[in-house]
Amino acid sequence: MSTTRVKLTIAYDGSGYDGWQWQPEARGVQQVVEDALVKLMPGGPYRLHSSSRTDAGVHALGMVAHADLPLAKARMTPHKLRIAINAYLPKDIRVLESTRVRPDFHARFHATGKQYRYTVWNHAAMNPLLQGRAWQVPVKLDVPAMKRAAKLFVGQQDFRSLATNRGQVLKDAVRTLTRCDVTRSGPQINFVIEGDGFLYKMCRSIVGTLVQVGKGRFSETDIRKIIAAESRGAAGMTAPAHGLVLWKVYYRGKRSGGASEWRNLES
Amino acid sequence: MSTTRVKLTIAYDGSGYDGWQWQPEARGVQQVVEDALVKLMPGGPYRLHSSSRTDAGVHALGMVAHADLPLAKARMTPHKLRIAINAYLPKDIRVLESTRVRPDFHARFHATGKQYRYTVWNHAAMNPLLQGRAWQVPVKLDVPAMKRAAKLFVGQQDFRSLATNRGQVLKDAVRTLTRCDVTRSGPQINFVIEGDGFLYKMCRSIVGTLVQVGKGRFSETDIRKIIAAESRGAAGMTAPAHGLVLWKVYYRGKRSGGASEWRNLES
Repeated sequence: MSTTRVKLTIAYDGSGYDGWQWQPEARGVQQVVEDALVKLMPGGPYRLHSSSRTDAGVHALGMVAHADLPLAKARMTPHKLRIAINAYLPKDIRVLESTRVRPDFHARFHATGKQYRYTVWNHAAMNPLLQGRAWQVPVKLDVPAMKRAAKLFVGQQDFRSLATNRGQVLKDAVRTLTRCDVTRSGPQINFVIEGDGFLYKMCRSIVGTLVQVGKGRFSETDIRKIIAAESRGAAGMTAPAHGLVLWKVYYRGKRSGGASEWRNLES
Repeated sequence: MSTTRVKLTIAYDGSGYDGWQWQPEARGVQQVVEDALVKLMPGGPYRLHSSSRTDAGVHALGMVAHADLPLAKARMTPHKLRIAINAYLPKDIRVLESTRVRPDFHARFHATGKQYRYTVWNHAAMNPLLQGRAWQVPVKLDVPAMKRAAKLFVGQQDFRSLATNRGQVLKDAVRTLTRCDVTRSGPQINFVIEGDGFLYKMCRSIVGTLVQVGKGRFSETDIRKIIAAESRGAAGMTAPAHGLVLWKVYYRGKRSGGASEWRNLES
């Protein structure tokens, strides 16, 4: 059967899901999207290959996945596919973009970088408008100290100390962070973390460690030591999942995978 | 009974409420907070006097209200009151600040200005992370044109054309807008509207009219004419309630009513 490789950019509220990935006896976002594809197209099942996995509770604005679909047989264009699949998806999952790609495109292997964002609500009482979207930290944080410490994560280094190893020995833990920004807007603290790749729970570990800096528990020297230790347990806590959003995924040639492109806008 | 006048700064997700104000056979935020006060304090009922009313579905980060409460009899401080009342409130309503004020302070009459924010998600598919928080506009908007038109609302003028009159004749519709900013961040368009006072549905009417400008249906000249017409019906549509947040309320002397102050942070 002749198929077309399609690249989907998917946004979801992770609150109601056990993460992205398919797991037995759990509800992953991947399976919900794959099930919607089966309802739309003859044949199937269809398999989505994603740029990333996200843990339970983590959100996405620009998750990227590819699939080989019988578009011609279903008389579908990628544009029509986006509209049709959204009609079959729950409101907490939306396909923001759908484009035809070359048959050798791979959402995971061809990704050149990713951007994650994390939100902290730094106030004694939670903001109801950020419920399920931000980590509430009720003690005052020293944001200038956090900004300085954040810069220490930027660059190419071994991030073993900032990963959870899932019981395996990590062979290669060298990654390059290109951005680790902390900004405050009132009680809201925004983190933007960008790099060529991320180890398991690395983003949440960086945020958790920076919050320890904000509380005065770690100094810049401590952060340098943590990174140099190259062992988990050296770092601070892991920030909760619900403050994290996979914001966009980059591919060679042009920035892609975010929701900032206009080609699918009906004008 | 000796009472203390207390000023509360209240945040809420308006999705589940029929607006702020108490109404028979409806569920207003005001009543939920007043009921929580009765559970906390001897006596009562207690009446909240608010800076503003918000319509069904409209959110708040910095609604301000005052009440006269028997703090001494209840062995409460304003600080303890904030913690205690939040334990009695649903998660979609939070008291962010609670402070003692002079007995002549009035949340409504002493307010010198208010800031509202409005969010538009300008993309063919909705962002699940902004569900219930933003108005989805699926056609491409000319944001530079909207920015230029927004400036025409700034200043002291008669805003009759931008209000819904609720069947009454408006005596005084002159208000001063000090800020009407439109900014884009990817598909998200943020409005910040600040002024000394607002007529009924005025903010949503300004946003709805600016979106018409973004669609090319109104020019800058049209906006000038709409304002000059001083009659409702001249303006464009009213933007939906769920994109609007009462962000903060200002009082003389210092900026207040927002969540940007730190006095209640446990440090």
